[in-house]
Amino acid sequence: MKLLQIVRRAVSGGCFYTSRFGTKYSSDANNFVLFFGFSSRSTYSAQQNLNSKWGSKKRKILKLQKAKNFMMDPEIEAKLAPLRQAVKEQGDIVRKLKSEGAVEIDVKRAVAELKHKKKALEDKELELAPKDDFDRLKMEDLLKQRFFYDQAFAIYGGINGLYDFGPMGCAMKANLLQAWRKHFVLEEQMLEVCTAMLTPEPVLRASGHVERFQDYMVKDLKTGDCYRADHLIEATFEKMLDDKKTADETKEAIRALLPTIDGMSKDDMGRTLREYNMKSPITGNDLTDPIDFNLMFATSIGPTGQLKGFLRPETAQGIFVNFKRLLEFNQGKLPFAGAQIGDSFRNEISPRSGLIRVREFTMAEIEHFCDPTDKSHAKFPKVADILMTLYSGCNQMDGKPPEKVTIGEAVKSKLVANETLGYFMARIQLFLIKVGVDPSKLRFRQHLSNEMAHYACDCWDAELKTSYGWIECVGCADRSCYDLTQHTKSTGVKLVAEKPLPAPRTLDIVECVPQKGPLGKSFRQNAKAITEHLSKLSSEEVNSVEQALNETGSVNVDVNGSSFAITKDMVQVKRYQKTVHVEEFVPSVIEPSFGIGRVMYSIFEHNFKVREGDEQRTYLALPPVISPFKCSVLPLSQNADFVPLVQKLSAALTDMDISHKVDNSSGSIGRRYARTDQIAIPYGITVDFDSLKEPNTATLRERDSMKQVRAPVSELPEIIKSLADGKRTWEEVLNNYPIFEQQEASK
Amino acid sequence: MKLLQIVRRAVSGGCFYTSRFGTKYSSDANNFVLFFGFSSRSTYSAQQNLNSKWGSKKRKILKLQKAKNFMMDPEIEAKLAPLRQAVKEQGDIVRKLKSEGAVEIDVKRAVAELKHKKKALEDKELELAPKDDFDRLKMEDLLKQRFFYDQAFAIYGGINGLYDFGPMGCAMKANLLQAWRKHFVLEEQMLEVCTAMLTPEPVLRASGHVERFQDYMVKDLKTGDCYRADHLIEATFEKMLDDKKTADETKEAIRALLPTIDGMSKDDMGRTLREYNMKSPITGNDLTDPIDFNLMFATSIGPTGQLKGFLRPETAQGIFVNFKRLLEFNQGKLPFAGAQIGDSFRNEISPRSGLIRVREFTMAEIEHFCDPTDKSHAKFPKVADILMTLYSGCNQMDGKPPEKVTIGEAVKSKLVANETLGYFMARIQLFLIKVGVDPSKLRFRQHLSNEMAHYACDCWDAELKTSYGWIECVGCADRSCYDLTQHTKSTGVKLVAEKPLPAPRTLDIVECVPQKGPLGKSFRQNAKAITEHLSKLSSEEVNSVEQALNETGSVNVDVNGSSFAITKDMVQVKRYQKTVHVEEFVPSVIEPSFGIGRVMYSIFEHNFKVREGDEQRTYLALPPVISPFKCSVLPLSQNADFVPLVQKLSAALTDMDISHKVDNSSGSIGRRYARTDQIAIPYGITVDFDSLKEPNTATLRERDSMKQVRAPVSELPEIIKSLADGKRTWEEVLNNYPIFEQQEASK
Repeated sequence: MKLLQIVRRAVSGGCFYTSRFGTKYSSDANNFVLFFGFSSRSTYSAQQNLNSKWGSKKRKILKLQKAKNFMMDPEIEAKLAPLRQAVKEQGDIVRKLKSEGAVEIDVKRAVAELKHKKKALEDKELELAPKDDFDRLKMEDLLKQRFFYDQAFAIYGGINGLYDFGPMGCAMKANLLQAWRKHFVLEEQMLEVCTAMLTPEPVLRASGHVERFQDYMVKDLKTGDCYRADHLIEATFEKMLDDKKTADETKEAIRALLPTIDGMSKDDMGRTLREYNMKSPITGNDLTDPIDFNLMFATSIGPTGQLKGFLRPETAQGIFVNFKRLLEFNQGKLPFAGAQIGDSFRNEISPRSGLIRVREFTMAEIEHFCDPTDKSHAKFPKVADILMTLYSGCNQMDGKPPEKVTIGEAVKSKLVANETLGYFMARIQLFLIKVGVDPSKLRFRQHLSNEMAHYACDCWDAELKTSYGWIECVGCADRSCYDLTQHTKSTGVKLVAEKPLPAPRTLDIVECVPQKGPLGKSFRQNAKAITEHLSKLSSEEVNSVEQALNETGSVNVDVNGSSFAITKDMVQVKRYQKTVHVEEFVPSVIEPSFGIGRVMYSIFEHNFKVREGDEQRTYLALPPVISPFKCSVLPLSQNADFVPLVQKLSAALTDMDISHKVDNSSGSIGRRYARTDQIAIPYGITVDFDSLKEPNTATLRERDSMKQVRAPVSELPEIIKSLADGKRTWEEVLNNYPIFEQQEASK
Repeated sequence: MKLLQIVRRAVSGGCFYTSRFGTKYSSDANNFVLFFGFSSRSTYSAQQNLNSKWGSKKRKILKLQKAKNFMMDPEIEAKLAPLRQAVKEQGDIVRKLKSEGAVEIDVKRAVAELKHKKKALEDKELELAPKDDFDRLKMEDLLKQRFFYDQAFAIYGGINGLYDFGPMGCAMKANLLQAWRKHFVLEEQMLEVCTAMLTPEPVLRASGHVERFQDYMVKDLKTGDCYRADHLIEATFEKMLDDKKTADETKEAIRALLPTIDGMSKDDMGRTLREYNMKSPITGNDLTDPIDFNLMFATSIGPTGQLKGFLRPETAQGIFVNFKRLLEFNQGKLPFAGAQIGDSFRNEISPRSGLIRVREFTMAEIEHFCDPTDKSHAKFPKVADILMTLYSGCNQMDGKPPEKVTIGEAVKSKLVANETLGYFMARIQLFLIKVGVDPSKLRFRQHLSNEMAHYACDCWDAELKTSYGWIECVGCADRSCYDLTQHTKSTGVKLVAEKPLPAPRTLDIVECVPQKGPLGKSFRQNAKAITEHLSKLSSEEVNSVEQALNETGSVNVDVNGSSFAITKDMVQVKRYQKTVHVEEFVPSVIEPSFGIGRVMYSIFEHNFKVREGDEQRTYLALPPVISPFKCSVLPLSQNADFVPLVQKLSAALTDMDISHKVDNSSGSIGRRYARTDQIAIPYGITVDFDSLKEPNTATLRERDSMKQVRAPVSELPEIIKSLADGKRTWEEVLNNYPIFEQQEASK
């Protein structure tokens, strides 16, 4: 997850979106909804289908998905048409300016205007999209009440941007991470590492974070309250536009400035703040000039206070600095992938939107190292037929909606840069759907060239649609050789791989061999450093030293800030030929990077349901793979006769490692079902009076359909296990065991 | 994991050991070995037995363990006797002084002397113990080479006290944590949480960390290098004692001071530094006076710089601050346990001893909340027969070795304070042995009353013997109601539970009902605060307000620093009776706290082996439950004919979630076995030419015995699974499949 794409934007000016998750520029600008021609409700059953059958029936689902297509509502499209046209026209202007090599300021202005028009289109799309009956407050109530997560340190007043996961959220998160590990690490034999969070400054200076991972902020001169400068300018402008007292020419000037805010430099912002006499929005006090605010948490390591460090803002650097060890572990062979699941920290100026923008968060990152001249992937054919919703840079510039294509076609047509990038995009999609993401609320958006870091070849974000708009949850970028090169520059340690040359190559070697005796005699304690310096000279440097020695008999070298006169007796120049069979190269990196909190939040939204006809009965339809418990065991009543059978069943479930919850509290069975539904338990076993008769049987209920069967107690653990592992479907269970019909008392 | 026990030591002076793992005072003082009468080597096979059969055959093992007893070598005991006697005599002096209520300084001196004598005994024990042929350097080579873990940021020169786990360490750690989760969280239905690491200052002020989680350090005035003051004083004294030039009377004074260092106050240390003219040990420069150095990493949260925070020094506080939510989640019922696996941070002045003292580390903590008047445990009978090595405070004061008793006897005799504490101690032992700890290198050491926090009733540390001495790896303390009470004091939020009264109780209630009308009229914007103040008055306060009103018609109340005159019309006093059925109480907490890095390190030491007759062939005998991979799959050669069968087998293993490594590199089978042995893979499947014949069979090799059988390929995944899960023993496999005899080529 790299900031530099963003950083560049701040430097170079315009880009339309600001799409690196977890960074300052994310999601806000992205609150638009694309109308796919079918509501999320109508795709719900298809998704359920997907979840329950995934694993065994992939092909069938892909076909199913393929059948659906973008059937635009002609009435809505008619309303959007002029806006689409306006985006396209502006997009063409940008293209033209760029192709003509226009001056930067002109391109910047045109891009800002394009962004403005794009925003208008998005707002309209959002406005016209069929309304979801999702109720965020109701969902948050459930999540809080069942302690999935809640604000941290609430008894101390709470801290913005910090959250605690309770037993249900913690179990779900552990299951999600375990599923990630299986889907990525085990499946691809990735090299998982677990590296330090405390990071010394030089590492993050090399990665670019110290210099450029920042926002501009202004402070209220009296209270010290902080605001993000760009947010404040925008809000003030919008207030002025709404104000009748604002003069017409001022309004016109503001309208011209509004779209340029994102591209403003620190000085631009300062000038604007002063020119429009902007004040603190709450107190009306004066403000400071914009201040650079680095988003990393700083601390010092060790007791001296001299070793500056930061909490890592991403887990990726921990993989890069271990590249040599990992390559060695992999016996020198490429490609291979490093992976890491871990926590990162970003000191957001104003955290908000619940789990979406937080100060401490879990990431799961993969760095796939490969030969830059060969980015094919052996397993690409296995995913080539997967249909994906791709929102290309081109479509974004043309005001067009995303398109559905197979990843195979996308790579073939060069829309997606290479097979490895495409392979990971498809694998990301498979994973997200497996863990409960609604496929109709998933799209991959390409970074526009303006958003992309100069070193990146191609970058796609998996965006999930939530009530906050489209949120970037997974980034997938081809980062070329940037990071390894940076760390090599900073440390002098070569981070390279080797590959056999097509044919051996003969090299002419020129080497300077320092003569320890004479050097030691002349330079004593400095001799070691001088010797080291001399033996590291490049061929060209050796040649020039030799020439100087031949001409003048002496040459000065600078070591550790002092100059030393080297004479002929102190060095010997060796020339020879060497045959090499391998060449060194800096590997390219493909980086899929997951924001786990964001994925979790989207899953909550996509799976929050209300029972038809009972507003109060909410539940979470999480797929079993990530449910906190796989099943519940409910004795019909607190009758002591049920106890032995419940205990026996619980022990049998434990023996098969099936996490389950025994709920022997009082309360009707219906009420207890409702409670287990709220914590997303997919299957419920009820022990009733019939269960006590030989052969023991019990009822088994499925959460989403609320259908029940009756099955032998001895078979139940195996049934649950196979359902939870996706090796059997609920339909198969319905077909093989007698249906148990009994009205479920809801109260 | 609490610091306050330690902190108290700094305040109150003497204690013998400093036994909180991960804190400044840990292990150093503890480098002694107790001679159990049998070497670790002779118990090795017993341990292997334990590991492989654990689960199904607990009882049998317990008997086996019981049979072994402390057979002291009489020759060694004769040498130790005078030292034991000296400890006992000094222990008696301490007891006597305490019982007589002697002045603090005298007790302190006596305790310091006791500590000194105890150290002499320990050193002798260590010296006389039979030498282990363990080679730490060799083990560290293996761990580095196979990238279990290594120093973090090595390419940047490395940072002390920070480590990165490579693929093998990371997988082992994940397995260890998963085993912990199963053994504790799932088995006891604990409520696992995952809380923020960034912690605002008030939370850690309440817990005592801000004020007292510190060491004294001195700085080199010129270089700024830092030293722990106590370490520096001790080292300087020892150097002076060895120096022939030191005057005899000085030596005598030093000998008297040496044992008091641990109890020195900041001023004492400053005085000593000056008196003996101590200098920086490396440069000889002058030193500062001792400085308080808090061991927490400080940072600031949010952009203003005004919200001070720390990285948490333990995970426990995250559970305490969520107590109310967890109690509610548990439907108000006690007992229950919260649990958390997570990372913590301590800015050690001088980290050392590899994974044992680090700056960033993983902990797994349990807070078991229960009724302070009933610390029985329903499952205690299940563990009562477990035999444990207990090193009681009494034995420590008497110069006696630890004793073996069952936990049932220990609780019955009040040696261990209560059943719940005893239950967890036994469960900790079962866990440690399950994950590979050598039972002969495990003991539980009781905190002496001097070491224990004032609020703690009893505290035992699970200590593991390593080449660094006995290391505290798990603490297990009864912490009474300390933490909840502290957070209630700081926040005003009642952290209590309720329990039914034996009989309903009738209470006389006196209540002040503020009259909003008159209050509002008189006090306007202050009315709300005054109303709140009045309604919170205690019965006594209401009575005195009423009396004043009756006597003078008016009474002044102080709210927010101002005084307000309340008149009769503003309040109404209500008196009534209320019948209550429940009473509130602050729960007690039993806290098992694991230092995961320390446990891992000890497991490495306990399982590092060298093949008999081949010094170079080292391996790790980790139990399958924590091995990075459960098995290897090795084609006999790179012959293409093996590929389909290897792939089929690998797919079958994946399908059963068995982590495995296919090693189809070149190199003899023996060399590949040696490599898989080094990464602790317990089982190896080799596909050879016989495997290609129908019915397909392959060889299966066990790492520790190197014995092999031949089994049908179709049965192998199931065999591995049951071996790895502890549901089948290797002996059973040997008995059921034909032995495959073939010399293993080691090179």
